[in-house]
Amino acid sequence: MDLLKQRIVEDGTVLPGNVLKVDNFLNHQVDTKLMDQIGEEFAKLFKDEKITKVITVESSGIAPALMTAFHIGVPLIFARKHKSLTLTDNLYTANVYSYTKQVSNDISVDKRFLNPEDRVLIIDDFLANGQAVQGLLEIAKVAKVDVAGVGIVIEKSFQKGRSMIEKTGVRLESLARIASLDNQKVTFVE
Amino acid sequence: MDLLKQRIVEDGTVLPGNVLKVDNFLNHQVDTKLMDQIGEEFAKLFKDEKITKVITVESSGIAPALMTAFHIGVPLIFARKHKSLTLTDNLYTANVYSYTKQVSNDISVDKRFLNPEDRVLIIDDFLANGQAVQGLLEIAKVAKVDVAGVGIVIEKSFQKGRSMIEKTGVRLESLARIASLDNQKVTFVE
Repeated sequence: MDLLKQRIVEDGTVLPGNVLKVDNFLNHQVDTKLMDQIGEEFAKLFKDEKITKVITVESSGIAPALMTAFHIGVPLIFARKHKSLTLTDNLYTANVYSYTKQVSNDISVDKRFLNPEDRVLIIDDFLANGQAVQGLLEIAKVAKVDVAGVGIVIEKSFQKGRSMIEKTGVRLESLARIASLDNQKVTFVE
Repeated sequence: MDLLKQRIVEDGTVLPGNVLKVDNFLNHQVDTKLMDQIGEEFAKLFKDEKITKVITVESSGIAPALMTAFHIGVPLIFARKHKSLTLTDNLYTANVYSYTKQVSNDISVDKRFLNPEDRVLIIDDFLANGQAVQGLLEIAKVAKVDVAGVGIVIEKSFQKGRSMIEKTGVRLESLARIASLDNQKVTFVE
């Protein structure tokens, strides 16, 4: 998605440690028009997939997932993040480790919202090591729902998230794939 | 907003302790078409207010705030919630107490995103005691930005949030105002 790549180059900042800061248009301040176009693009990419629900993890995933679900014409579910719970009878839960924050959280979805007849699309803003996606895939498996695919706004292709998803056989579409952030410069996958 | 009220009656559940559960269409699973209509309604209500940015707090505020900002044609900012920080030089920060979760968190917005020429609209999914709105009003004050108004999806009019906002003189628009949840029944303000 050229518009997004152009925006990353113009407005993104590369920080030491392979961090790409895009908080001025993607995950703190949000360019709502761009977000709508991102949603439209995912809806187009997955249009033949008979998706019944879009699923993401709070908080940064909500904006792109909401616009995608709106354009497909289905509900959005956002998994909740929290410290490990003792009572989880009514929840599908998975444990997710965040390398960025170096903390482990449970994510959960109420069992009422995922049924075996569902076919879900997982959307997230970033793919690095793929922990959040892995957690959602685990939840989908336990809930016995089909996963139509994974849609990522910005993929750090030099980290292991992509290969993890490819091993599961699930379709992966990333709107911008970053090959490297070396020398504080963004290089996209050709 | 009749469509919203009807949905609250049909799909909401009243739990003991004046809790209205609407997680099947508003804040866990999201009806994206309804959310779009909510955004359209806020945009219409505040259309003459020369709003430059919409602001909310993660996570449940993001969906209605994103749709509102999209329909107005301005960026969205979502304040981040976290434990009290030691380094806050580049952030506007306010402390917010959650009665529901009985926990106190800081919320913060990067200083780059609020400037004195901005005129913001605060959007949130629920108004009960008004702690989150109060935190955003504090941030707006310190950032020296005008507040055009506060837009709330569901207001519990029997709690003190409304009177707190009215005392500040800031315009408040709630799409559904609930007078009482007594006897596990939703009664709207006439």
